[in-house]
Amino acid sequence: MNIKSPYLLFIGDAVDPLSIKMARSAADWCPEHCVGEFTLPGCSVTTGLPDMSIAHAAQLGAKSFVLGFANSGGTLDSAWVPAILEALDAGLDIVSGLHDKLSDIEVIKTKAQLLNRQLIDLRHPKDKFRTGTGTKRTGKRILTVGTDCSVGKMYTSLSLKKAMDNRGVASTFRATGQCGILISGGGVAIDCVVSDFISGAVESLSPDNQPEHWDIIEGQGSLSHPAFAGVSLGLLHGAQADALVICHAFGRAHMRGLPQYAVPTIEHTIALNESAARLTNPEAKVVGVSVNSSALNEQQALQQCDELSQRLGLPVADPFRHEMKTILDNFL
Amino acid sequence: MNIKSPYLLFIGDAVDPLSIKMARSAADWCPEHCVGEFTLPGCSVTTGLPDMSIAHAAQLGAKSFVLGFANSGGTLDSAWVPAILEALDAGLDIVSGLHDKLSDIEVIKTKAQLLNRQLIDLRHPKDKFRTGTGTKRTGKRILTVGTDCSVGKMYTSLSLKKAMDNRGVASTFRATGQCGILISGGGVAIDCVVSDFISGAVESLSPDNQPEHWDIIEGQGSLSHPAFAGVSLGLLHGAQADALVICHAFGRAHMRGLPQYAVPTIEHTIALNESAARLTNPEAKVVGVSVNSSALNEQQALQQCDELSQRLGLPVADPFRHEMKTILDNFL
Repeated sequence: MNIKSPYLLFIGDAVDPLSIKMARSAADWCPEHCVGEFTLPGCSVTTGLPDMSIAHAAQLGAKSFVLGFANSGGTLDSAWVPAILEALDAGLDIVSGLHDKLSDIEVIKTKAQLLNRQLIDLRHPKDKFRTGTGTKRTGKRILTVGTDCSVGKMYTSLSLKKAMDNRGVASTFRATGQCGILISGGGVAIDCVVSDFISGAVESLSPDNQPEHWDIIEGQGSLSHPAFAGVSLGLLHGAQADALVICHAFGRAHMRGLPQYAVPTIEHTIALNESAARLTNPEAKVVGVSVNSSALNEQQALQQCDELSQRLGLPVADPFRHEMKTILDNFL
Repeated sequence: MNIKSPYLLFIGDAVDPLSIKMARSAADWCPEHCVGEFTLPGCSVTTGLPDMSIAHAAQLGAKSFVLGFANSGGTLDSAWVPAILEALDAGLDIVSGLHDKLSDIEVIKTKAQLLNRQLIDLRHPKDKFRTGTGTKRTGKRILTVGTDCSVGKMYTSLSLKKAMDNRGVASTFRATGQCGILISGGGVAIDCVVSDFISGAVESLSPDNQPEHWDIIEGQGSLSHPAFAGVSLGLLHGAQADALVICHAFGRAHMRGLPQYAVPTIEHTIALNESAARLTNPEAKVVGVSVNSSALNEQQALQQCDELSQRLGLPVADPFRHEMKTILDNFL
């Protein structure tokens, strides 16, 4: 994959901060690769980067126009097409993490060919996978799993990577979603793999390694989400994780996109994931809880983490506010 | 889908009876649509239909050459290509249930175009799906689930359909695999759907219906299979089944294709499936066990079914040997 930086992050007329996950991921984890964001009228959220026109971004040297969206179903809204065409005209490649492919839209495809620009569909795997084997692999693996979707599995994984780097522990971040792929430049978008190959794709993403090396595998979805639990289970079985970190967002009212479904308890999520994970790794064990405490102030956050930690007998931390040290100590 | 019958069933040089599931399904469930089977040297299994040349089948009026295979990974063996080309030359369409697409093989595609024959890839859904919603649908649903792959979920589903027809209960068979699609002429091959859409595809396959109507949904894989459990879980959540039938093969030594994985007990399979199914239908309940007792003689089979039934407190039957009556009585 040859994604040219710097990026202009396109967030359209978004109003839900969770819906621009792709843009926020880049702004948070590789700001040095971003010149700014581009919005449409009505947009009420921001990545925190300067809002600018496509022409201005091009003058600043932007090389890629990144669709910053992560909607359910991964559809490409026709209202975005004019901006995409303008970006192509301005000399930028287009990068998308949606299910809908850029090259399936005739007008985009034609202009990109004419102008010799790249259309990069990050979510669409180029590899041909095998079905899973469940065979034990060498090296160690940690996987982030969630009470829900969009609770911070990628952020937690990248924070664990940073913490391991700081401690001199050999590790590799293994991206399983479009945002992680954009940030790290490689990986497999598991939710876009043909379902027969979910586990097999994860097995190939995290192959045999040195005995003391850790693969930090980004989780997807939740075993308790009615739409996506299949993806989560296949990923869990393919990962054969030794260590699991539960990710949870304080104050989430219901499962993402489904008002009629309650968020499961962390206790239930631990039991469900450990029991399912042990099919392919009988030693699998939850080693900590990573929370998104952005709904709370600093003191409330610390207090709720403490209470949760005592209740569960596990280290609890928010990767944005606290260090991952206690979680690392618990399994290294 | 316009699959022209009658079929010539191609089973190549197969030696494992489970590997020609597609051919056996057609021979067992729609023999009136089959003229015979075509084998290659070394083949040691049979569908029971007469072995004949492609030319002879064409003389008998065969219209479609059906690849009878169901290998793990769904790959199209290059050794089959000459037979496929011969069938095209003889005037037949080609029907495949593999992941590999017929039209991706240049020599097959070219000849089919030249001769104006159809290449039908049953496993590749043509529809665009939405992600699941978990919303309760009207009508009733029964789903077959398994201790393993290839234990008789489709056979059980079709037997339940026959039994409901005999009793005058309104019902529809909903195929989720290539064999079921070949037999019934419609459905969605769930293991070929992009993983984000597993549950959503099942929701659309089994829409709202009359309150007393039963959808009989064919299951796939097993929650205990390291390669395919993700597909099974997504299907289970999308189906929102009121009733579950556990399918099991007596004498299966290990999980299909994985000698290091033991087959789970039926008790464990019941608990696992009921607990997972209740996420989207709190009333979900196992109503019976359907066994494949072909490894036993008639008397042994009856005895083992009786013992199992007493142990579990559930009706147990082999759809090939016994009627589905006891299972039907338990939930209608």
